[in-house]
Amino acid sequence: MKKMNMVIAQSGGPSMVINESLVGAVLEARKSAKIGKILGAKHGILGILGSDYIDLKKVSEKKLRKIAETPSSALGSCRKKPDADDCKAIFEAFRKLEVGYFFYIGGNDSADAARIVAEEAEKANYPLVVYHIPKTIDNDLRSCDHTPGFGSAARFVASAIRGDDLDNRALLGVKIDIIMGRDAGFLTAASALARAHEDDGPHLIYLPEVPFSEEKFVKDVQAVMKKLGRCVCAVSEGIRGKDGVPIGAKLGSGETDSHGNVQMSGTGALGDALAKLLKEKAKIKRVRADTFGYLQRSFPSIASKTDQAEAFAAGAAAVKAALAGKLSKGTIAIVREAGRKYKVAFAPVPIQNAAKYTRSVPKEYIARNGHDVTAAFIEYAKPIVGELPPCEIF
Amino acid sequence: MKKMNMVIAQSGGPSMVINESLVGAVLEARKSAKIGKILGAKHGILGILGSDYIDLKKVSEKKLRKIAETPSSALGSCRKKPDADDCKAIFEAFRKLEVGYFFYIGGNDSADAARIVAEEAEKANYPLVVYHIPKTIDNDLRSCDHTPGFGSAARFVASAIRGDDLDNRALLGVKIDIIMGRDAGFLTAASALARAHEDDGPHLIYLPEVPFSEEKFVKDVQAVMKKLGRCVCAVSEGIRGKDGVPIGAKLGSGETDSHGNVQMSGTGALGDALAKLLKEKAKIKRVRADTFGYLQRSFPSIASKTDQAEAFAAGAAAVKAALAGKLSKGTIAIVREAGRKYKVAFAPVPIQNAAKYTRSVPKEYIARNGHDVTAAFIEYAKPIVGELPPCEIF
Repeated sequence: MKKMNMVIAQSGGPSMVINESLVGAVLEARKSAKIGKILGAKHGILGILGSDYIDLKKVSEKKLRKIAETPSSALGSCRKKPDADDCKAIFEAFRKLEVGYFFYIGGNDSADAARIVAEEAEKANYPLVVYHIPKTIDNDLRSCDHTPGFGSAARFVASAIRGDDLDNRALLGVKIDIIMGRDAGFLTAASALARAHEDDGPHLIYLPEVPFSEEKFVKDVQAVMKKLGRCVCAVSEGIRGKDGVPIGAKLGSGETDSHGNVQMSGTGALGDALAKLLKEKAKIKRVRADTFGYLQRSFPSIASKTDQAEAFAAGAAAVKAALAGKLSKGTIAIVREAGRKYKVAFAPVPIQNAAKYTRSVPKEYIARNGHDVTAAFIEYAKPIVGELPPCEIF
Repeated sequence: MKKMNMVIAQSGGPSMVINESLVGAVLEARKSAKIGKILGAKHGILGILGSDYIDLKKVSEKKLRKIAETPSSALGSCRKKPDADDCKAIFEAFRKLEVGYFFYIGGNDSADAARIVAEEAEKANYPLVVYHIPKTIDNDLRSCDHTPGFGSAARFVASAIRGDDLDNRALLGVKIDIIMGRDAGFLTAASALARAHEDDGPHLIYLPEVPFSEEKFVKDVQAVMKKLGRCVCAVSEGIRGKDGVPIGAKLGSGETDSHGNVQMSGTGALGDALAKLLKEKAKIKRVRADTFGYLQRSFPSIASKTDQAEAFAAGAAAVKAALAGKLSKGTIAIVREAGRKYKVAFAPVPIQNAAKYTRSVPKEYIARNGHDVTAAFIEYAKPIVGELPPCEIF
C-alpha cells in the first residue's frame, strides 16, 4: 500500500489545550506505516493556500510535548470559510503533495469548513479522508458531551470569579464580570463552580439562553445588595433582549468574520454599559465591571488536567478513526459514559454532527429564576473543570 | 508587666498575599507574653469605629494558614482617611478594650491613615504602638525595594501577557492590554517578563512615567506591525499626556475616594478608546483591547512564592519591631541586600517613610525609546516574580 501524506491545521479561536489535540494527532500519526509526511499548515486553510507548512515529523517528541502544554494555536489560526475556488486550489496543492489525510482542529465553523472541503473533494473525485477534531471554549458542539478547551476556560472563569468575589467581600459593591460565549452560556454558567460558601458569588448569572431584561437585572441586583451588601454578577457577552439581538453587538464595532459572526470580545463596552445602568437606576455607588476577554482562552498554568488529557486523546482518536477507514469524513464525538465515575469515550461520527449549528445550555441546567444554574449543571461541569484552589474565609 | 491587647486591620486595595501579612503578624503576636487579645478589625478603621472585631486568638493555626493562602483581604478593607474626630473615637474604643498595639496593613494611603492615628494618639497622650505593614500591588512605597503584593500581581500580568501574545500569534492583529497602576508603572513594566523568545510580546510598553502621545503610539504600533504583522501593547491605566492628567480618568466616571484618588479600574474605557484610535488613524482592522482589571490582585493559584514568604515575614517583622520597643510608630522597610544571590531584610523605619507620597519607576528602568523597560528592570523584578510556566513555539 502506498503511503499518503497528511496535513493538519488549527482554526478559529485558540484554546489552552488545542495544542494537546495537535500533538495527540501527530504522535498517533507517527506510529502509522500508512502515513508519510506530517505537514502542519500555518494559519489553517490559509497555510494550505499559501504553501506554508511545518514538517511535523522533524520536530522532536520532547518539543512537541512542551508545545502541547503551551496555550493558543501553535500552528497559527484563521477564521476563513473556504469557497469552491479555495477548495479547487486546496486539492491542487494536496495532489502535488500527495496528501490523503486532512485534519482540522476547531469549533463549529471549523467543522463546517472541513465539511465543505470534504464535500468538494468528493465532487472533484479527490480521494481525501477528512477529520475534524473538536475544540471550543464555548462548549457548543452538538456532537460532544463537552468540548476540549471548555474545561480549561471554565477553570479560568471559576477561578477568576472566586478571586473577584473575595475581592468584592473586602471592598463592598457590585461587580459585573463579562464572560465569553457568543451564543451558548456554558462558560458563564461555569462561574457557579466558584462557590465554596453559601454566600459566595456569583450571586447572579445571566446566560444568552434567557432573554435579558434591564429592569429585572436592576431588581435582581438590588435584592442581593439588600441581603448581602455586595453582589457579583457573571454576565455572558452574548446576552440578548427579547428581540434576540446581542446587547454587546449593538454596543460594539459591528465587525464580522467570514462566517458572519459579530465581534463581541476584545472590548469593555457591555460591562461598562451595565455598570452605568446600575449606577443610574439603582443608585449604587460602587459598581465595577471587568471583561475577562482573551485571558479566558489563553492564560498559562490554569488548564484543567482532564481537559488536557481529553484534548490529546481526541486528536489521537481522529487519526485512529481516519486510518481505520470506516468513516472517511468524520469528527470525534466525546461521549460521557453512564455510571457514577466520570469517564468518556471518543467515537467517530459524521462531520455534519459538529458543523455549523451549535447547541445551547439545555433547560435543565438553567434555574427557574432565570439568573442561576441548577445542581445538575454543577454535576455536569465539575469533573471537566476539576477542583479549584482552596479558599478560606473567617 | 501588664499585657496589652492588639488590633490589626487591612486597608486599601486587596492583594493576593495581604492575608500572609495578617497571619504572619498574628502568629508572631501569639508567641508573645506581652500581648493579650488579638483583635482583627473588619473593614479597616470602620471596624474599629463600629466595634466589629474577630478574636484572632480563637482561630486555629490551620485555618489561619489556609486564610494566608487565600487572595484578598480576609478581614475586609476600606478606603477611609481618619480625621481628628475619628481618631478620638478610635482612642475611646481602644481605651475600653485596653489596646496598646495597632497594626495596619496597606499601601501609602493606609500608611498615611496609620500615621494620622499615631500622631493623634501622641497629641491625645494615648500610649499606642502603631505599625504599618507594607502592601501594594503598585510597588510604589518609598520605604521598600519592592512591596508585598507586587510580585504576585506582576506574575499574573506577565502570565496573562504571555498567553495573550501566544493568542495574538495565532490570530494576527493588535492587542492592547490595560494594566493597573494609577501613578507608578511597575506592574505594567513587569509585562516584559512575559518574553521568552526574541519576537515575543509585549512589543510596546507604556508607563505613566513617560508622557503619552497618541501620535507616537500610532507610529510605534505601525512600525511593529510592519516588522511582525502583529503587536501586543502593555499600557498602564495611568498613562497621561503632557498635561499630566491621566487619559483614563478623563474617560472614566470621575468617582473619587476619601484620599482623593480618581477611579480608573473596573472599566474598559481606556482600552476601547486606544483601540478606536488605532482603527481610525492606523487603519488596522483587527484591534482588540482587554483590561486586566481586578483579576490582577485577586486571582487564586498564581501568587509568587517569594512574594508570599515576604508578605508573611513583613507581618511578623512588624510585630517583632513593635514588641522590641525601639520605634513606636513604624513601618517595615524591605531592603534588598547586596550580592549576587537575591536576599531581603526587614527593617523597622519611621512610618512617614511609607506614608502618602509614592515613588515612580526610576529612570534607569525605562528604555530610551519611551516604550520599553531596560535589562536592569528585568534583573530587579525577576526574583520577586519567579519563573513563569514554560512556553514553547515552533
